[in-house]
Amino acid sequence: MNEFDWIRSIAPTHHHRSSVIQGIGDDAAVFRPRNGWDMVTAVDSFSEGVHFTKDTMPLDAVGYKLLAANVSDLAAMGAVPLYYLVSAAIPATGWKLSELDPVYAGMKRLGDAYSMDLIGGDTISTGNGLVLTITVIGRVEQDRRLLRSSARPGDVLFLTGPVGLAAAGLSRLLAQGKSAWSKERDIEAHQYPVPHVEYGRVFAESGLRVAINDVSDGIAHEAEEIAEASNVAVTIIRERLPETGIQAESSKLEDWMLRGGEDFVLIGAASEADYLGLEKTCAEQELPLYRIGFVEEGNAQVVIERNGKRERLTGGGYSHF
Amino acid sequence: MNEFDWIRSIAPTHHHRSSVIQGIGDDAAVFRPRNGWDMVTAVDSFSEGVHFTKDTMPLDAVGYKLLAANVSDLAAMGAVPLYYLVSAAIPATGWKLSELDPVYAGMKRLGDAYSMDLIGGDTISTGNGLVLTITVIGRVEQDRRLLRSSARPGDVLFLTGPVGLAAAGLSRLLAQGKSAWSKERDIEAHQYPVPHVEYGRVFAESGLRVAINDVSDGIAHEAEEIAEASNVAVTIIRERLPETGIQAESSKLEDWMLRGGEDFVLIGAASEADYLGLEKTCAEQELPLYRIGFVEEGNAQVVIERNGKRERLTGGGYSHF
Repeated sequence: MNEFDWIRSIAPTHHHRSSVIQGIGDDAAVFRPRNGWDMVTAVDSFSEGVHFTKDTMPLDAVGYKLLAANVSDLAAMGAVPLYYLVSAAIPATGWKLSELDPVYAGMKRLGDAYSMDLIGGDTISTGNGLVLTITVIGRVEQDRRLLRSSARPGDVLFLTGPVGLAAAGLSRLLAQGKSAWSKERDIEAHQYPVPHVEYGRVFAESGLRVAINDVSDGIAHEAEEIAEASNVAVTIIRERLPETGIQAESSKLEDWMLRGGEDFVLIGAASEADYLGLEKTCAEQELPLYRIGFVEEGNAQVVIERNGKRERLTGGGYSHF
Repeated sequence: MNEFDWIRSIAPTHHHRSSVIQGIGDDAAVFRPRNGWDMVTAVDSFSEGVHFTKDTMPLDAVGYKLLAANVSDLAAMGAVPLYYLVSAAIPATGWKLSELDPVYAGMKRLGDAYSMDLIGGDTISTGNGLVLTITVIGRVEQDRRLLRSSARPGDVLFLTGPVGLAAAGLSRLLAQGKSAWSKERDIEAHQYPVPHVEYGRVFAESGLRVAINDVSDGIAHEAEEIAEASNVAVTIIRERLPETGIQAESSKLEDWMLRGGEDFVLIGAASEADYLGLEKTCAEQELPLYRIGFVEEGNAQVVIERNGKRERLTGGGYSHF
């Protein structure tokens, strides 16, 4: 099968969204926006050897997780995911086009769960190491986007799920390789993370002031981004972080919780009254919220409070260079 | 300078388009579509060693040309370019983050020419060979998109500019390396191709039936795509192909014209009457059109006619695998 035939083989034969006017098969894709909504878009890439190896991730998880990472960015803006475009730079040696099939199948599995349509892509060769790039497009009601910059002193700091599981899973995968592949929670958290789209929609639909970031780089880093963008001081209470049930040395557990990335839950801030309302609406949809701290006046910084003792929390955020 | 500071350094400080509601700096970008218009999007990637080397392309040309290739896809749909997102997978060795500055400056130069805004991106490390991916987003009036599938028997086949120049330039660059870098037409055509956005807009604004493809893979291949999508036979008349002024063996010249890619002009088909009208409108804007053949009933195929002799034209289209 040559490249052109292969592209035809992965192009969808129907679209979930009637707003797709032209999908794969012309120079570009065309979609019709809905009146009264804004469009939301983000791009994320994975590279072999950095984000995954053939030992840490099954091929379908590579596609699934990259799309999940992108969808998580849409969730953090309160958006409904709609479309995605995929570019694959495939090593001329060491990879076969057919190995991409499970990668695209993994994307499709997650995409279908949100009725997302694959509407464009590119396939090129490269020297060494697969590089995959996905661009996602979604929509949110006008003026309902969820920004990092809207946290205010007095706000409750909260999470939409536990953190540290994905890092715990990665730690096991790096040590044990394929023999660790399983449906256990930490391994699933690393390989098949679930983006928190439903939470984002509750927050956006509420019309309330809710500051949101997705946890791709660890909560120490994500809380710092909220603190910087909102120019406030953020406190995380160690004892409030939801238990993961993972067994490990306590300093390691805490490091995974604070600095482990790729959990793809949301971290947010809202006023006490609004938080209680959101908690109620979320509970009706079986979406638990976890209050983990608070926001105060102060310079952009994050504090960790352990047994009442406060300490500045810095660092975090994976740097590629 | 670390990665986060570097991203801040390339993030635009203002946007050309007031429709950009949130640019770089949150989880995703937000833009407001214009009522009555559809959105158009495409993605393209370049990899070092395949699309360019440090000998064939100055670094700013790498960024410029990748964005041009993407904008050309928008032009082929008749769209106005608006925004772009960039993902860079940078080799951990052999490249410095600071070398990306001219790459992004080259993109910005072309982007500014169309008042396009950089609204998102990702920067990751990879094993070997720079991989750059750009996603572009534009808009076209509802139901005015230009499709490959709308050619009809009796149509005029036309080009918006000469073809073969970029291939001639690449041939010299591969032979002579950096010593060939110059402002000469063939070198400029390879390094700094100009997408034909203005033509696309004339065609879309006309409201006429115009089939359009951009010439990224050589006209033999692009004409075949029109023939297949429209289920018609397309004839290219060799003597009608615009002269490039390039001196070379005639078989080589013809090969560059027919199969040389990356010229980023547009190839199209329209009825005789519509073509004459478009030619007039284009001429008023100093945009010459070149009639190079015709469309007939028949199975999806392309014929080349030389001195009245007709021959099936096949092949073409760069395959990476």
